[in-house]
Amino acid sequence: MKSSEQRIAEGFLFTDQYQLTMAQLYYRMGLHEKQVQFDHFFRKYPDYGLHQAGYCISAGLGWLLDWMQEVTISDVELDYLRSQTDRTNQPIFGEDFLEWLRDHATFDSLTLRAIPEGRVVHAQVPLTIVKGPLAVAQILETSLLNHINYQTLVATKAARIQQSGHGQLLLEFGLRRGQEKGANAGTRAALIGGADFSSNVGISHLLGYPPKGTHAHSMVQVFLALGMSEQDAFQAYADVYPDDCLLLVDTVDTLASGVPHAIKVFEKLRKRGHEPVGIRLDSGDLAYLSVQAAKLMNEAGFRDTTIVLSSDLDELAILQITAQIIQEARQYNMDADHMLKRLSYGVGTKLITSTGEAALGGVYKLVAVQDGDKWLPAIKISENPVKTPNPGNKNIWRLYDRRGLATVDLMSLEDEDPRTMDNFTIFHPADHSKSRQIVQANISEIEPLLITALDEGRPVYESPSIEVMRDQRRRDLARLDPGVKRIINPHRYHVSLTQPLWELKQNLIKSVHQ
Amino acid sequence: MKSSEQRIAEGFLFTDQYQLTMAQLYYRMGLHEKQVQFDHFFRKYPDYGLHQAGYCISAGLGWLLDWMQEVTISDVELDYLRSQTDRTNQPIFGEDFLEWLRDHATFDSLTLRAIPEGRVVHAQVPLTIVKGPLAVAQILETSLLNHINYQTLVATKAARIQQSGHGQLLLEFGLRRGQEKGANAGTRAALIGGADFSSNVGISHLLGYPPKGTHAHSMVQVFLALGMSEQDAFQAYADVYPDDCLLLVDTVDTLASGVPHAIKVFEKLRKRGHEPVGIRLDSGDLAYLSVQAAKLMNEAGFRDTTIVLSSDLDELAILQITAQIIQEARQYNMDADHMLKRLSYGVGTKLITSTGEAALGGVYKLVAVQDGDKWLPAIKISENPVKTPNPGNKNIWRLYDRRGLATVDLMSLEDEDPRTMDNFTIFHPADHSKSRQIVQANISEIEPLLITALDEGRPVYESPSIEVMRDQRRRDLARLDPGVKRIINPHRYHVSLTQPLWELKQNLIKSVHQ
Repeated sequence: MKSSEQRIAEGFLFTDQYQLTMAQLYYRMGLHEKQVQFDHFFRKYPDYGLHQAGYCISAGLGWLLDWMQEVTISDVELDYLRSQTDRTNQPIFGEDFLEWLRDHATFDSLTLRAIPEGRVVHAQVPLTIVKGPLAVAQILETSLLNHINYQTLVATKAARIQQSGHGQLLLEFGLRRGQEKGANAGTRAALIGGADFSSNVGISHLLGYPPKGTHAHSMVQVFLALGMSEQDAFQAYADVYPDDCLLLVDTVDTLASGVPHAIKVFEKLRKRGHEPVGIRLDSGDLAYLSVQAAKLMNEAGFRDTTIVLSSDLDELAILQITAQIIQEARQYNMDADHMLKRLSYGVGTKLITSTGEAALGGVYKLVAVQDGDKWLPAIKISENPVKTPNPGNKNIWRLYDRRGLATVDLMSLEDEDPRTMDNFTIFHPADHSKSRQIVQANISEIEPLLITALDEGRPVYESPSIEVMRDQRRRDLARLDPGVKRIINPHRYHVSLTQPLWELKQNLIKSVHQ
Repeated sequence: MKSSEQRIAEGFLFTDQYQLTMAQLYYRMGLHEKQVQFDHFFRKYPDYGLHQAGYCISAGLGWLLDWMQEVTISDVELDYLRSQTDRTNQPIFGEDFLEWLRDHATFDSLTLRAIPEGRVVHAQVPLTIVKGPLAVAQILETSLLNHINYQTLVATKAARIQQSGHGQLLLEFGLRRGQEKGANAGTRAALIGGADFSSNVGISHLLGYPPKGTHAHSMVQVFLALGMSEQDAFQAYADVYPDDCLLLVDTVDTLASGVPHAIKVFEKLRKRGHEPVGIRLDSGDLAYLSVQAAKLMNEAGFRDTTIVLSSDLDELAILQITAQIIQEARQYNMDADHMLKRLSYGVGTKLITSTGEAALGGVYKLVAVQDGDKWLPAIKISENPVKTPNPGNKNIWRLYDRRGLATVDLMSLEDEDPRTMDNFTIFHPADHSKSRQIVQANISEIEPLLITALDEGRPVYESPSIEVMRDQRRRDLARLDPGVKRIINPHRYHVSLTQPLWELKQNLIKSVHQ
């Protein structure tokens, strides 16, 4: 795409056609400025096939807010909409509506509450709540989902991969396999969710994290093609980057050529007063090769050099590799724990595309409509009770048990405050038979999860730095039950409704059925 | 991301760090302007788990060329690179290299040959061939892979989905589930590969295809919440869009409420001289519901209204739906063929994310280095013979049999022209035991597949319109063996090397092993 076209493709028209046709319908019916509330939530955690998430990490809000605040509607957009015709060649959009759109299509009439980025979040619980004029809140749907679904998906995957790698350094390498410029959003989300650094230069720069990398096989190939050797290539790299020397050792033969050549170069480096960083393995049996490579490096006196593993890794592959390393290390009389602690992981494709579940099914559902002074709850009944959204204006709370671990995310009506309530009963959102008694004496903390980002369009929230989001993520994960954090077959975290919200929902379902 | 930051994140620094560190190394070694050739190809067709592609549709070249021609390197980029430091706080990039980068970092020294967009393409065969100075060709790698891998992946998925839907109208609905702004690239690729239209307004506008859509469940919910009915909502929609009236009928109850209400509205429309478009089904047993809905609409005299199906569709789901419809239609004495022909498909998540295989594993491999007047072939030996690239400067040909069907894609050395050759032998790229005799009398056409897009940086190719690419795709698919086009377990299409290229590869492998 030419950059001159980018403003059009990524601006106000970065939406689905039906948002605009519905907006015009609301305008014609005089409903366009009726106050409504939409909840954005995901119904189920990502399910990667052989493994499933028990939690997600929220991300994407900051860039959504940037988009909302920068979007304008100019003659280019209006002229294009004016030119659209139906099957009988009549204009689809009328001048009356287009005029309204020109004056009201920015998002400065909306109130947006959200769970901040970097937080542990759960299925069914709204990540974002939008309140404002019907037509404007409707038009926002597509872009809101686009911005938050994807980044939350990738932040979640990054948290899982980091966890399976025992918290060792995680590098994001996916730029070449992402969805075009959207890869930058993937890198950002990975940095929020669990990646320490990324190879992606531009976005790393903007976010303040130095980009990382080694070299490609092609560098060794160039030397070979010109009649030089792998060791010549390594030596050249060490000469140019004596204090950042990380060598890719699998171009020719990892153990017979790559590692011995790297060791020779490392020895020279050390003589000249530089400590080598280490090696990268990008093919073959990574567990076997890393134990053997470590053995060779240990024998040569390089016990603390890093071993970066890459090549189609994800959380399952890393689980397997670490398990195998522990076994193999014992077999060769090596310290397994020391082995694991010298590893770093470079993860590309499977992080940036969230392999196994490449989209988060976040939805944006109408839950309330104002009529006069009264808010009317709205509901869409589904044959599957789990798909029936929770109606009305809500607040969201996280309850921690006496150990300080999160025990339930609770949705309440907007005017309820469980911090001021005595012991109370909470209800499963879909299963009528499940309720649970909350005894305040067993609860160490009740935390409201939503912040207000936009108050009738006024920005009242400053997006924190990525580092602040990461701290939040670490704190949230530390307060999450280990069973919920399992990579495979995690425990189901509790999400509940207060009794008033539960009754509202039941009554509404009954009234629709009648 | 703020738009002021976008230029940095999407410009010259839209690359991996190691491209820049390698470029500096080449600069220091005096190798940076050595002429080299990189081939970009994918090793295997997307494998979606239970089904696999037997071909791909190329896409993404046009936007890559736009990017290459617009990229500049300014003081912002240089200052950032200047600020990068290694572990001892020394600058990573020297002033000598940065000066060279400033003057040479755009891509106007590269020659780029490629298979045009919209063509059927195959594993192992280069989609793009880049020739030029080593450092510049190396830096291009990331962006080239990013642009072409993803669009080719989605164009391929779109072709498969369109095929499984018997060529019926296919609408792309994935904007909310794509990777942020990369969703626009997905829409473009879908339109090249098989989607007729998209719901994405901005990019549809830019590419000249009217965006399509119906309405959301929320529209019906608003009416219900305000005490009106589903039929009131439908009537309002019909009043505003009398000639584009497509109604979503599953908000309350598809057969008991949605379809009967739609029929009432359609009857009024017809009385007023307008033909309704049809209905959309977005949940439940789509095959059963579409047969039942069709029955109701037929009985009311609306035999030709469209039924748009959506809800997590992909090529397998559509195969299942069409098979079930044929059975159910018979059971209810309906014309199955007429049923299938009134269907359209709206596909979102599973098209834009290419569910099952969310990335195309396209790689960019050094295949030749010039030394003096001579081109030296380069090779990277892999333990897996299929992963050993084909060396040297090449041309690519497609051979058609006497029926006019494509029978093999043939890689030759650059100076070979199989059109002028007598009968000849061709070889499997990896399996030594497989060769095949080509008898010219059995070949109806030998077509060169590569065009030159950039000639030493000079643009010598005008990207065709999407419509031209679609025509090309239709022609190529018509000339592909039905076995290769199968959705599940496709035949393996033949890709081969000429004897001189095969011998070059074998000799090179031998010389590396020695």
